[in-house]
Amino acid sequence: MTDIAAIDAAALRLSGRARVTPVLSSPFIDEIAGRRVFVKAECLQHTGSFKFRGAWSAISALSPSVRANGVIAFSSGNHAQGVAHAAKLHGVDSVIIMPKDAPQLKIANTRALGAEVVLYDRAGESREEIGQRISSERGMTLIRPYDEPLVIAGQGTAGLELAEQLADLGMRRGDVLVPAGGGGLTAGIALALEARAPDLQVRPCEPEGYDDTARSLAAGSRQRNASMQNGLCDAIVTPEPGEITFPIVQRLCGSGLVVSDDEVLQAVALAWLRLKIVVEPGGAVGLAAALFHGDKIKGEDVAVVCSGGNIDREVFDRALATLKV
Amino acid sequence: MTDIAAIDAAALRLSGRARVTPVLSSPFIDEIAGRRVFVKAECLQHTGSFKFRGAWSAISALSPSVRANGVIAFSSGNHAQGVAHAAKLHGVDSVIIMPKDAPQLKIANTRALGAEVVLYDRAGESREEIGQRISSERGMTLIRPYDEPLVIAGQGTAGLELAEQLADLGMRRGDVLVPAGGGGLTAGIALALEARAPDLQVRPCEPEGYDDTARSLAAGSRQRNASMQNGLCDAIVTPEPGEITFPIVQRLCGSGLVVSDDEVLQAVALAWLRLKIVVEPGGAVGLAAALFHGDKIKGEDVAVVCSGGNIDREVFDRALATLKV
Repeated sequence: MTDIAAIDAAALRLSGRARVTPVLSSPFIDEIAGRRVFVKAECLQHTGSFKFRGAWSAISALSPSVRANGVIAFSSGNHAQGVAHAAKLHGVDSVIIMPKDAPQLKIANTRALGAEVVLYDRAGESREEIGQRISSERGMTLIRPYDEPLVIAGQGTAGLELAEQLADLGMRRGDVLVPAGGGGLTAGIALALEARAPDLQVRPCEPEGYDDTARSLAAGSRQRNASMQNGLCDAIVTPEPGEITFPIVQRLCGSGLVVSDDEVLQAVALAWLRLKIVVEPGGAVGLAAALFHGDKIKGEDVAVVCSGGNIDREVFDRALATLKV
Repeated sequence: MTDIAAIDAAALRLSGRARVTPVLSSPFIDEIAGRRVFVKAECLQHTGSFKFRGAWSAISALSPSVRANGVIAFSSGNHAQGVAHAAKLHGVDSVIIMPKDAPQLKIANTRALGAEVVLYDRAGESREEIGQRISSERGMTLIRPYDEPLVIAGQGTAGLELAEQLADLGMRRGDVLVPAGGGGLTAGIALALEARAPDLQVRPCEPEGYDDTARSLAAGSRQRNASMQNGLCDAIVTPEPGEITFPIVQRLCGSGLVVSDDEVLQAVALAWLRLKIVVEPGGAVGLAAALFHGDKIKGEDVAVVCSGGNIDREVFDRALATLKV
């Protein structure tokens, strides 16, 4: 079970290993948003996304004999890099199962971080089945990307940091906009804030066409995405909210926010121009919501998690092309 | 006089105002450099460069009655934005004297940060005369960009942070590569490290053609740049090392490192790809030296300050075009 004690325990294991990522801001961003916007730059985490937290949390909690057999993960990219890097730092092997259409940069990076990469077809094959097979054949421990209590606890450490950082900045109430895929980061941060900053509420953010979490929250039960085709925000495209994460999200989060691809590209560009950070589309949906959907947000200030920065050059060029300056 | 006491005093005034910027790293960067590289991302400071530290330090130290008359600065770049923002946060007026032919974006940004911008004609007018006139007419205090003890003390607070951060990361000896223009940041960090991490030595870094600090150190006296034409690294192009800063740099720093424009562009691109930060050319000369001049650096690990991130899109596009991935 994931609770604040599990998150605190993960924070101890991550201490000195994960980065305490900064909270950034810009008067230019505030002016567009119409309120103060505090951006937790989790794109500056090791391997360029929050996923390193959950990966380290899960791998560091394995018994040494189990860990020695190595770990396996299926991922569109960021979880892959987090697991590969955390495994390497623990001195154990990793196998990563990735979709054939994942960004080339993510595939290359995962290999360079020391993992064995197995590619699969997103449309015709089940990554879960492939993962289970390799796991049982080689005795490797499967590290699930979000439906895993130790991973949720690891992601929750970002929420512990945020509670302290926002208190220092004078924000004690309002919305915290978090990019939502399977819901590991969303659930982890929501649990951390419930315990440490109960007047801050997580709002899951998603791109149009992949708003399973928003629709699930509205319906009161898990809804699937109509398509799993690779959208702009590939990092947060999952079939549906997680079985373990969704009840947490449902209990603690406010309604979902949905942004357009064009808004996401503008958010990526403004993060470059005004915050000096590199954010990938999936990591920028929360910032896009803060910038362009302020009418659906409550409070004087808003906090945003920019969850990853692993973006290809072509997409980045498209983003910068939206700038008017 | 600037000494560690002045830097500690500046750190107290800056506490909760300037950002404690993170130290980042990447195994991909380490591999190119052939050693561990720790990057202090000062581009994430308010207004996108370290200049906010010195500006805040100087303005916050003025007596309330003097400060109430406002401040004035000559700059077309990072110092202008730092002074404008720090003045606004203090609730006082600022006048920034900029050349008429400065990029519209920089003029617009400086105005948007709350400054009154006074434009002058580079060919027919003296900015010093204009500055003196406004200063005496309106009683405003001139904030010099580097030859000012309070500014040097403010920049030195980055060195206090670095000493602690590098100790936590296990780096207690070796070179600290700092972009050098007039020498405010270089001198400030060198003074901080002398007191708090005496086995770390600052190495000033400059672009080819504007290596006045490296030549001055070699000659033992201040040398001028042959040209003041705006190079790629405009943020760190000054006529010669400062009168106040140079004796500090001479006493405490190792020899200068000089990098090519192409190396700088590659460093900007690798910072984008691997560290997820936006660095301007002048801010990337230290990273370029770590990546491509490792033979002139001593020690197992090296630290780098990426001092600013205010880069134009065209230059950024040129930088990304150097990437092989």
